[in-house]
Amino acid sequence: MRLAELSGRSGVSTATIKYYLREGLLPPGRQVNATTAEYGEEHLRRLRLVRAMVQVGRLPVATVREVLGHVDDDSLGRTVRLGAALWALPQVPEPDADDEHVRAAREEADALLEALGWSNARLLKTISPAYRSLVVAVAALRRLGYRPDAELLVSYARLMHRAAELDLDHVEQQPSEAERVEAAVLGAILVEPVLQALHRLAQEEESARRYGFE
Amino acid sequence: MRLAELSGRSGVSTATIKYYLREGLLPPGRQVNATTAEYGEEHLRRLRLVRAMVQVGRLPVATVREVLGHVDDDSLGRTVRLGAALWALPQVPEPDADDEHVRAAREEADALLEALGWSNARLLKTISPAYRSLVVAVAALRRLGYRPDAELLVSYARLMHRAAELDLDHVEQQPSEAERVEAAVLGAILVEPVLQALHRLAQEEESARRYGFE
Repeated sequence: MRLAELSGRSGVSTATIKYYLREGLLPPGRQVNATTAEYGEEHLRRLRLVRAMVQVGRLPVATVREVLGHVDDDSLGRTVRLGAALWALPQVPEPDADDEHVRAAREEADALLEALGWSNARLLKTISPAYRSLVVAVAALRRLGYRPDAELLVSYARLMHRAAELDLDHVEQQPSEAERVEAAVLGAILVEPVLQALHRLAQEEESARRYGFE
Repeated sequence: MRLAELSGRSGVSTATIKYYLREGLLPPGRQVNATTAEYGEEHLRRLRLVRAMVQVGRLPVATVREVLGHVDDDSLGRTVRLGAALWALPQVPEPDADDEHVRAAREEADALLEALGWSNARLLKTISPAYRSLVVAVAALRRLGYRPDAELLVSYARLMHRAAELDLDHVEQQPSEAERVEAAVLGAILVEPVLQALHRLAQEEESARRYGFE
């Protein structure tokens, strides 16, 4: 298809498509003559992926380029390629290791991973931004004077593990490896707002079930 | 306890406590003489609650006052009191009802609630910001050219319902009604970052289990 059709089918303006081409976020089309290039379905898919990262994930263009570099590098292992977007999402800053609440939160997070048997997460924890987010979230609770209930944390974690299994099952259903990696990137960006909305709605539903509307 | 002790035990400066008192976020202490007031455990709890909303939830002071107004109004039904903070959290703006993706997303959200048997959520949906968030999240997917898998949405929703049951079980374990309402407000603000971190960590764990590190 030509640029105009790519624009029409993707809903992205031709000016933005040209910008993405210049920035290397979209691979060049097949040059038909000096002024015309031909684009394929893979361009359409890539364009959707870039828009998801830019518009929904609010990732800066440089970060999108970095994620796509990982996505397209088939010398990388699958865990790294599938995790590329997760690691590029806006992350919490490194917590202060000297802070007493951070130290206690780290111990609690480690005890949780131990209880869950998430040995890979333990391995990953030196580099994983998600581990850091967990420590920061637990430290915030402690700083407010609350100790999270260890049993409740385990229950939440098992639910989230089930969600992650569903995520990856969905990724594995995609027909090609390129599409699997793309689905993983999209999942990392688009699933969280859906889960958050469902959680809030479920809280309302369950509260109304238990206590009525009065 | 005196102001200095309230400050020491809560970790909130006396200047900030005085500001909260002036703004009506903290009820006045019992006046002992012209310059000294005495504070109780309920002041300490309320101070932690205000800090959670301001520092973690990033709610503006006017919104915190509004939430506390609901929390303290025992003429309101329990569902409304427990939901006070949920409804005060930053929400997505009302989506454009004329947009084709929004219309389709609304139909999908309704079909989901139907499939789940969440009749209260259907009732609440005219006013619930969580329902609106779900519609906006699904519309964002559709605008990118993706149709969320209805079966996957049902599975996600069942997991989030289980999380909401755990949330409310935890709330019900609190010893007094005042503490139950406070726990619900805290849960709405503090649980989401924990669930999000656990979800990301679980994705890494599951990915490493399935595909190794290579």
